[in-house]
Amino acid sequence: MYGLIGKFRAVPGQRDALVAILLEDVSAMPGCLSYVVAQDPGDADALWVTEVWDSRASHQASLSLPQVKDAIARAMPLIAGLDQHIETVPAGGYGIRAPG
Amino acid sequence: MYGLIGKFRAVPGQRDALVAILLEDVSAMPGCLSYVVAQDPGDADALWVTEVWDSRASHQASLSLPQVKDAIARAMPLIAGLDQHIETVPAGGYGIRAPG
Repeated sequence: MYGLIGKFRAVPGQRDALVAILLEDVSAMPGCLSYVVAQDPGDADALWVTEVWDSRASHQASLSLPQVKDAIARAMPLIAGLDQHIETVPAGGYGIRAPG
Repeated sequence: MYGLIGKFRAVPGQRDALVAILLEDVSAMPGCLSYVVAQDPGDADALWVTEVWDSRASHQASLSLPQVKDAIARAMPLIAGLDQHIETVPAGGYGIRAPG
């Protein structure tokens, strides 16, 4: 499996709008086993996105999906920075959808 | 919802053993909506645990479950440090089990 942990910095005042975009239509991404968008309660502009995919290739392919490309295009102006970008190798857990 | 992102440092050579303990019996924790244990491919001793709970109270209560207390007791000697411990407020996502 392939995992990502990212800490995004929203443009001040735009975190809620960014979260809304990032949560649109998240159920139809082939190979996506887990995708969570969370606010950082300690920083009004920070949010965390944690993901598990069945493979790096599936994640890469998702970036070409029309709805994902559209969401990225609308989200980019609301993103002020990417504070952390961590790739992981998920070993297992709970709430990880079965592949396929 | 209540979320946690933790970067643990295993005692050198003990990451696999630690991961195995952390993945034991993870399906029976009331209020746990998502729980992922992942290795950091860039650091042989580092692993990430990302969690989503229906509430902080549910997470707190889980620490008193016999199987969790037992796992923590066995895991502690294999943990060399906690590099990051982030509390989050999950807004939504995919692969988050419905509460209850």
